[in-house]
Amino acid sequence: MSKPNVLVVGSGGVGSVTALSLVTRDRSTVTLVVRSDYDLVASRGIEFRSCSYGHIRNWKPHHLARSVADAARDFGPFDYVVLTTKNIPDGPSPCEHIVRPAITPHTTTLILVQNGIGIEKVMLKSFPNTIVLSGIQMVGSSYQNGVVDHIAPDNLKIGEFVPSTGGRTAHVISQFIDIYQNDNSLNSVAIDPNPKLSRWTKLVYNSVFNTITAIAGTDSNRAQIAAGSDSLIRPAMREVIAIARSDGAHITPDVVDRFCHLGDGLFYTPSMAVDRQKGQLMEIEVILGNPLAIARANGVETPILSTLYGLLRMCQLKTMEDRGYVTINKADFAGNSDEYMAIFAQKYRQ
Amino acid sequence: MSKPNVLVVGSGGVGSVTALSLVTRDRSTVTLVVRSDYDLVASRGIEFRSCSYGHIRNWKPHHLARSVADAARDFGPFDYVVLTTKNIPDGPSPCEHIVRPAITPHTTTLILVQNGIGIEKVMLKSFPNTIVLSGIQMVGSSYQNGVVDHIAPDNLKIGEFVPSTGGRTAHVISQFIDIYQNDNSLNSVAIDPNPKLSRWTKLVYNSVFNTITAIAGTDSNRAQIAAGSDSLIRPAMREVIAIARSDGAHITPDVVDRFCHLGDGLFYTPSMAVDRQKGQLMEIEVILGNPLAIARANGVETPILSTLYGLLRMCQLKTMEDRGYVTINKADFAGNSDEYMAIFAQKYRQ
Repeated sequence: MSKPNVLVVGSGGVGSVTALSLVTRDRSTVTLVVRSDYDLVASRGIEFRSCSYGHIRNWKPHHLARSVADAARDFGPFDYVVLTTKNIPDGPSPCEHIVRPAITPHTTTLILVQNGIGIEKVMLKSFPNTIVLSGIQMVGSSYQNGVVDHIAPDNLKIGEFVPSTGGRTAHVISQFIDIYQNDNSLNSVAIDPNPKLSRWTKLVYNSVFNTITAIAGTDSNRAQIAAGSDSLIRPAMREVIAIARSDGAHITPDVVDRFCHLGDGLFYTPSMAVDRQKGQLMEIEVILGNPLAIARANGVETPILSTLYGLLRMCQLKTMEDRGYVTINKADFAGNSDEYMAIFAQKYRQ
Repeated sequence: MSKPNVLVVGSGGVGSVTALSLVTRDRSTVTLVVRSDYDLVASRGIEFRSCSYGHIRNWKPHHLARSVADAARDFGPFDYVVLTTKNIPDGPSPCEHIVRPAITPHTTTLILVQNGIGIEKVMLKSFPNTIVLSGIQMVGSSYQNGVVDHIAPDNLKIGEFVPSTGGRTAHVISQFIDIYQNDNSLNSVAIDPNPKLSRWTKLVYNSVFNTITAIAGTDSNRAQIAAGSDSLIRPAMREVIAIARSDGAHITPDVVDRFCHLGDGLFYTPSMAVDRQKGQLMEIEVILGNPLAIARANGVETPILSTLYGLLRMCQLKTMEDRGYVTINKADFAGNSDEYMAIFAQKYRQ
């Protein structure tokens, strides 16, 4: 039996370490899609400064591709597509468009190693004959100019978004774990028995610290120095927990305190704040928009999170304008401000 | 009887037009404090491009001073001190420090032509034998490099923060109106019978549009294009109205709709957003901090405004660091994040 054929999409901090873990294990054939830095990586590989795998220069996976379409044409079909890009459905490259060329119905398994809630829905709709798995990766890793600084170990949990009894799903999960798990000192991968709970729990941090620091242009410690945590951060986390509960995920309230202390003394800038600093689109829909839609459907009050979401939409619109994704023609908005959203949706979001 | 002696503090858009209105009337002696641009204004005066007073070059009031202390020494004592600066009690120049040299107990009347709630308290405490009046100026005016663009007429309302029966207060108000009111086509000044209501009403706009646009780095129209007004802007305004009601100011709810449409098509950037863009401190305490203290005292729920305030504190801390007003020594904050606020208050706010 031939080795499973794996495509890793996204060569940032997460994707590069994912590819490294797979290639080190040597039980699969790994293609890595490198979009903007393809020429750089094709010529001199990736340099890892890895807390787990050591200092590696000129590293390459089995194959490199400039796009998912190139990868599918040259190195497909794939048994696994591991998607590690940011998930920005309101941007110019929704994830279902990104992976589409690499999905072979009935045979490809799609693993979404991404944050957020509700990210599987558009995939299940777009690829009804594809197994879509949840991947939650705890890793400290960042990529810049061909160099990966890997400072905290790769810890991956994969599982089913919606529990099934399907034998094939259990098989592809256990096979992926087999091709991913290196010596325990290097990385760790395990079955996630309850991805919904895992995702909502992670969201208690991300929906609050990522959003607040992105909006205010600060880090997780300065945020608390400036405003404390009692008036904003903790009540916001409790709103996330209430939405999660309405969705069937029961998070114990002690995570609030734990997450408030997670970064004590570290002055850590969450990824969403970094994205905004760099003028990049932020994952506001999967981190806040989708959870708030669930809150509305279930009648959960979310005044703080709704405020953060509204402010993030404003920040995101500015980034979209700055990057030329939308152009606000003032004449379109000369009239009644109540109609702005409708005008915007109609003219600018088609 | 000699003419009343007036000191105008602050030579921005509001202060310069205030001085122009007084000098045009020619019933008082006017000293204008010009801090950063003193040399420029002393040498070639101010240029007004005024919708009311026309195009005036090389304009000067009767006296110019580089500081309030200089003004008091050279041109005092003053019958009126008109304070038009921004009001930033958390910054390095609280307003009571600014005006102190010009206040003569029992004889000086202090007029606060400034936004916000609760701004009189520190003044009444600092100057217990001084009449302190509320000034609310509706004017479209901006100052830059010695040039004032005055695009909407000067409309001033003055009144007592706390209604009294004192004859002297009534006298100084009517005298000030006399020395301020030019021909009706030029400006307008009137007694404000209920400054509390006027101030809270203005705050329904300022506490929401100024804060939101400052936080998100946008203008009042793009804010609504991005997020609508129903989920954030209107509910936030209703919180201001609820606090005002608890404070005895009954604002009719129709102002919400009126204020949401005030800027239809104008793409106006409120002053607080301009301040943040310029890296200047914002008036967050008088616009939000003081109203929220009243809300807490009166048991009014303010989840949205409290969120905006927390975010503004984060933005303000960044500006304070950038300007060197505070330096965050990370070692001070290595421990328990619950204690951050106490540490900050103790070490950095003394």
